[in-house]
This record gives sequence, structure tokens and C-alpha cells, in this order.
Amino acid sequence: MRWEPNARGRLEQAAMQLIGEQGFEDTTVAEIAQRAGLTERTFFRHFTDKREVLFSGSELLAERMVEPVLAAPDSAAPLDAVAAGLAAAAELLEERREYAGQRQQIIDANVDLQERELIKMAWLSAAIADALRRRGVADPAARIAAEAGIAVFRTAFALWVEDADGPPLGVRMADAMAELRAVTAGAGWDRSASFTIH
Amino acid sequence: MRWEPNARGRLEQAAMQLIGEQGFEDTTVAEIAQRAGLTERTFFRHFTDKREVLFSGSELLAERMVEPVLAAPDSAAPLDAVAAGLAAAAELLEERREYAGQRQQIIDANVDLQERELIKMAWLSAAIADALRRRGVADPAARIAAEAGIAVFRTAFALWVEDADGPPLGVRMADAMAELRAVTAGAGWDRSASFTIH
Repeated sequence: MRWEPNARGRLEQAAMQLIGEQGFEDTTVAEIAQRAGLTERTFFRHFTDKREVLFSGSELLAERMVEPVLAAPDSAAPLDAVAAGLAAAAELLEERREYAGQRQQIIDANVDLQERELIKMAWLSAAIADALRRRGVADPAARIAAEAGIAVFRTAFALWVEDADGPPLGVRMADAMAELRAVTAGAGWDRSASFTIH
Repeated sequence: MRWEPNARGRLEQAAMQLIGEQGFEDTTVAEIAQRAGLTERTFFRHFTDKREVLFSGSELLAERMVEPVLAAPDSAAPLDAVAAGLAAAAELLEERREYAGQRQQIIDANVDLQERELIKMAWLSAAIADALRRRGVADPAARIAAEAGIAVFRTAFALWVEDADGPPLGVRMADAMAELRAVTAGAGWDRSASFTIH
């Protein structure tokens, strides 16, 4: 087994190029490996299938997001802990802004990839909720704080990739978080009034 | 083409029974049709594939959720409009509590079905965001209010199906909404402090 310097990164780059040129469906693992100057066997040492090459970053992303949630001071409110995780995620993604934009275009064009993306987001939400529970946050607060954090992430991320020359992701995240606070502060829901608007 | 009274409902019920007995993967469309006393052709007049039989309610659910969002008074805050949609959805789902629980068990056991469920939720979120935009709510507020509403829906729904003898879905929704307000009110995020916790 030869040592292949940065095989993973080369395969990712080759996949992005080929998929950009000829679409996701028409691109084979054999072609990706060839473009990267590697073998199919090497591809499958790094990725379980063709879809996975586009999601290889999600474990690192989850790690980066969860760490600050766990490390936040005891006094931090649940959503503050989540916000620290979002900030760390923004920093990581900002380094790969061009890649993120290209990747999103590919995902938007393919329903299977959209489904896998949503599964990854659901899994990320569950990881954050678990981290909050380890901080002593009870349910449903842990669950809802994690889901709200993912809502902020998704909104900020979508605006960030849509506008390549716009503000960095960290600013988008802070704006989306402020927007979440604004929409939740400005409303009231009275259970006794059987959910009518007042 | 014969008139089949309530073919759709009979096919749904047959599918639930068979999938409950032998699992989703091992159940065929032919078996579902046979159990319902109908033909495969009738099945495919109502559903595009086997998965879809479990998601036939999602269009009605979206309609019920979107209507109150559009109908809310001009003075209603975005999240109040969304809350009215959630209340209507809760009412609809409450009528089918047993079905919802059985269906959830089937979905939890199958990754493909989980993916389709997530796609439907994303689509629901987009429909609510559109309704908010038609009310004159700008982005990113429309997007984040819709996403936050779906976060409330998902959290409440999960707790509701997990605890069959617990409070009705409308109460779960109101609780999750209150929890969302509590977690967002209790925190602050200072952009100038480069997202450190304070």
C-alpha cells in the first residue's frame, strides 16, 4: 500500500471538477480516481460511495461545532453555547468559501444529495442537543435550542453562498441569530386562548 | 375505470398494516393493493411509489399550515402568524394520533423514509417562508421565522409521538414555542467581540 500524499483532498478536488463539468450522475468513481491520479481502491479507502466525497467535511464540522458548546462557561445560556459553536463553524467554512459555493450548486441540482445534506443537518442538530444535555440542559430546551441553532445556520449559510461577494459567514450567522431573537421577542402565544392570534 | 370508494384511504391502511407486519422493504405494492382489495393500477393512480403512500398527508398538512399564516391580521408578528399555522396543523394531526405514531415507527426504522421526511419538512419550511413574504415580511426574517416554526413543530411532534398518553400536540407546540422564546431571550451574541461568550 503506497503512501498517497493528500489523497483525500485530491479526490475531493477531482470530484468537484468532474461533477462541475459533466454533472453528478454522469461522473463515475473511476473517473474521479483517474483525474486525481489515484486508483479506485484508494477512493474507497477514503469514501464509502460517490455521494460521500461531497460530505467528507461534515464530521470535522460537527466536531468544531460541538467543542465550543461543551467548553462554554457554566454561566452561558444554552443558545449562547450554541452560538459559540456556530461561530467556530463559520470560521472553518470561511476558509473554504469557494469550495462551499461550488458544492452547494452541485447539491441544489440533485435531490439525492439534498436528502443526504438534510440528514447531515439533522445529525448535527442531534449532536448539538446531546452536547447541551451534557451541560445539564433539560429537554425540550436542549432540543429546541439545537434546532434553533441549526435554523440560524441554514439561513445564514444559504444567504452566504447565494452572495459570494457579501459579508463573511460569521456576520451572516450573527445577523440571523439577531433576527431569530427579534422574531421570537416580538410575538406571544397564549395557550388558554386556544391558539388564536392576539 | 371503476369507482373505488375511498381507495386512497384503504391503500394507506393496508400499507400501514403490511409494513407493520413485515417491514417496509419486504412489502410490495402488489401486496398493498391486494390487501386493500384493489389493483396495482389503482395504487399507481393515487401514489407515485411505495414511499409516497406514507407521505400522502403532507400536501393537506402544508395547506392547513399555510392558510392561517396568510389569514393572520396585519398586526400579527411573523412568528404569531406561524404559530397560528402550527395550531391548525396540530388540530389536523391530533385526529390521527394513532396513525401518526405507527407511521413514525416505520419511518424511524428506514433511512430512505427519514430522508423523504426531511425533504418534506424543508419543503414545508419553504412554503411558510413564502407565505410570510406574501405578508410583506422581508428576508432573512421570513426564512428564520419559518425555520424556527419548523424547529418548534419537529420538537413538539417528536415528544408527542414518543409519549402516546401525554398531552395533545397543540399543547406540545405551545410548550415548545414557549421554550424557544425562553432560550432566545436568555442569551446575547455580541458581534464586535468576535463571537466570544460573555
